[in-house]
Amino acid sequence: MNNYIKLYERERIKINQILSDALKYRQPTSLYEPGSYILNSGGKRLRPLLVLLSAKAVGGKFQDAYSAAAAVEMLHNFTLVHDDIMDNADKRRGRLTLHKKYDHNTAILAGDSLLSIAYEFLLRDCNGNAKEVISAFTHGLIEVCEGQSLDTDFELRKNVTLSEYILMIKKKTAAMAEMCCKIGALLGGGTNAQVNALAKYGLNLGIAFQIQDDLLDISADEKEFGKTIGGDLVEGKKTFLFLEALEKSKGNDRQKLLKVIERKGIKKNQVMTYKAIYEKLGVLDDARNEIKTYTQRALRSINLLDDENKSIFKWLADSLIHRTS
Amino acid sequence: MNNYIKLYERERIKINQILSDALKYRQPTSLYEPGSYILNSGGKRLRPLLVLLSAKAVGGKFQDAYSAAAAVEMLHNFTLVHDDIMDNADKRRGRLTLHKKYDHNTAILAGDSLLSIAYEFLLRDCNGNAKEVISAFTHGLIEVCEGQSLDTDFELRKNVTLSEYILMIKKKTAAMAEMCCKIGALLGGGTNAQVNALAKYGLNLGIAFQIQDDLLDISADEKEFGKTIGGDLVEGKKTFLFLEALEKSKGNDRQKLLKVIERKGIKKNQVMTYKAIYEKLGVLDDARNEIKTYTQRALRSINLLDDENKSIFKWLADSLIHRTS
Repeated sequence: MNNYIKLYERERIKINQILSDALKYRQPTSLYEPGSYILNSGGKRLRPLLVLLSAKAVGGKFQDAYSAAAAVEMLHNFTLVHDDIMDNADKRRGRLTLHKKYDHNTAILAGDSLLSIAYEFLLRDCNGNAKEVISAFTHGLIEVCEGQSLDTDFELRKNVTLSEYILMIKKKTAAMAEMCCKIGALLGGGTNAQVNALAKYGLNLGIAFQIQDDLLDISADEKEFGKTIGGDLVEGKKTFLFLEALEKSKGNDRQKLLKVIERKGIKKNQVMTYKAIYEKLGVLDDARNEIKTYTQRALRSINLLDDENKSIFKWLADSLIHRTS
Repeated sequence: MNNYIKLYERERIKINQILSDALKYRQPTSLYEPGSYILNSGGKRLRPLLVLLSAKAVGGKFQDAYSAAAAVEMLHNFTLVHDDIMDNADKRRGRLTLHKKYDHNTAILAGDSLLSIAYEFLLRDCNGNAKEVISAFTHGLIEVCEGQSLDTDFELRKNVTLSEYILMIKKKTAAMAEMCCKIGALLGGGTNAQVNALAKYGLNLGIAFQIQDDLLDISADEKEFGKTIGGDLVEGKKTFLFLEALEKSKGNDRQKLLKVIERKGIKKNQVMTYKAIYEKLGVLDDARNEIKTYTQRALRSINLLDDENKSIFKWLADSLIHRTS
C-alpha cells in the first residue's frame, strides 16, 4: 500500500507541473493569470489519478493520458470557479476564490477559458477514438451542469427526496469520476467491457465519495477536517444525512428538522443538538452503510481486471472511505 | 440573387427549428428553459449558414452539417449570455437578456450548459475527422474567450492601437466565422486547400463584418438600425472608427477624442459633434475602404471554388456590406 501512496504522490506532482505550465505563456494575461491562480491552488487531483490508473488498468501507459488527466482537472476547476460565484463563496482551498481575488466578470470568463483549454488538452491525447473520448468528456460536462442546476433547485424546494438527492450527486459529482475512468480506459485502448467496468467503478466511487463528504461534515475531527463541523447544517444544505434523517424522523425531531428548511439553516451553536438527532436516528450509520454499499458495487464492477490493478483501485476506494478531510 | 435569399430564408427556418427542438425535452427545466429562451430569440443565423454553405462548397451536403450548424449557433449564444452578464446589458434582440429575465446564477449556468450541448451537437456530425473538427471548434472557443478578455482590457486602457483592435476583433468575432467555414468544409469532406481557403474567407469576412458593425453604429439610418445612433461613442467604446480618428487627429479634435476616453463616453446630445469630427477626418471612408479590402481578401481566397459556389459566397459578402442593421 505504501507503494501506492508513493505512486499517487509522484503522479500528483507531475499533474501539478502540467497544470502549472498549461497557461504560463499564453496571452492575454488578464485571462490566463486568473486561470493559473486556480490551477495552482492545489487539491487532491483525484480525477486525473482516475484517468491515469484507468489507462494503465487496460494495458495502456500513463504517458497516453497525461494531457487528458490535466483536462479533467481543468474541467473540474472550471466548475469550481463558476460554482463559487453562484454560491458567493469567499474561500477555496484556503485561498480567496477567483471572483474575490479578481472580480465576477474575470471569474466568469476565466472559467469559460479553463473549459476551452480543457478540450484542447483532451484533444492532444486523442487519436483513433477521438469521437468516443470527447463524447464521454462532453457527457460528463452536461451532467455536471444539470447536477449543479438540480442542486440549486433543491435549495429552494422543501420536499426533496433521498432518491432525488442521489440523482443530483450522480450528476454533479459521480458523473465526473465515471467520465475520468471512461476516458482513461478509452485512451489506454481498453475493450468495451473494460471501459464500461471502469466507468461503473468511477460512478459508484463518486457516489460513495459524496456521501462520505456529507458524513465528514458532521463527524470529522475539526482539526484534521480544516473546516468547522456542521457547516452543511448551518447553511441548510439538503445532504444525504439531512434527507435520511427527515425521512426517518417523527414528532419533535421532525419539527426540528423542518425548521432547518424553513429558516434556511441553523446557528452554529445548534450543531451539536442536530448531531444528537442524527445519532439518535442512526443516520450516521446509514451513511456509513451507504458508502460501503456503493464502494462494494464499485469494486465488484472491476472484477475483470487483473489482481494488481484491482488492488490499486481497492486501495484508492479504501483511502477515500477512510479519509479525514 | 433572389434564389440565394430564398435559400437563406429556408435554411434559417430549418436552423431555428433545430435550435427550438434542441433543449425541448431535457431536464431539469430550470437549466434548459433559460437555454431555450436565448436559442429562440432569433438572430441572423449567419454562423450556421457559413457552416452549411462551406460543407456544400466542397462537394458535401447541407445534411452533413445541420447539427454542426446548430452547434456553432449554440456556441455563439453561450458567448452572448456570458457577455451580457459582463456588460450588464438589459436587452438583446429586443428582449430581456437572460440574466435580467432570470438571474445571474441561472445565466452563468445556462451559458455553460449551452456550450456543453454545442459540443454534443457537433459530435453528432463528426465521423472520420472528429479530431480535426473538434479542434477547429475548440480553437474558435479559445479565441473568443481571449478576444472577450482583450475587449475588456481595452475598456480600461487609454492607449489602444488600431492593430491591437484588429487583433481583438479577429479573436472575438472573426475567429468564429473562420471556424464555421472550416468545420463546414471539413464535414463536407473538403481537401486541405479547400478547408484553408474557406477558413480564410470566414476570417476576412468576419473582420469586415465587425468594422461594418462599427460603421453602422454611427452612420446607419436610425429607423432601420433599430438602435440609437452613436451608442458606441456614448459608451466610450474604442471602435475602429474611434481609434482611426484618434490616430489621424491633431489639436482640438484630438483633445475632444481624448475626452471620450477620460470620461468613458459622451452624452447623447454630443453624438453629432463627434460624427462631424469623424467626417472631417475621413474615418467613415477609411472604414468603408477597410471593409472593402477585407471583403476582397475574403473573395480572393476562395478563387479555387467553382463559379456557382463563388457566386453565393460573393452574394453573402455583398449582403453583409450593404446591410442596414
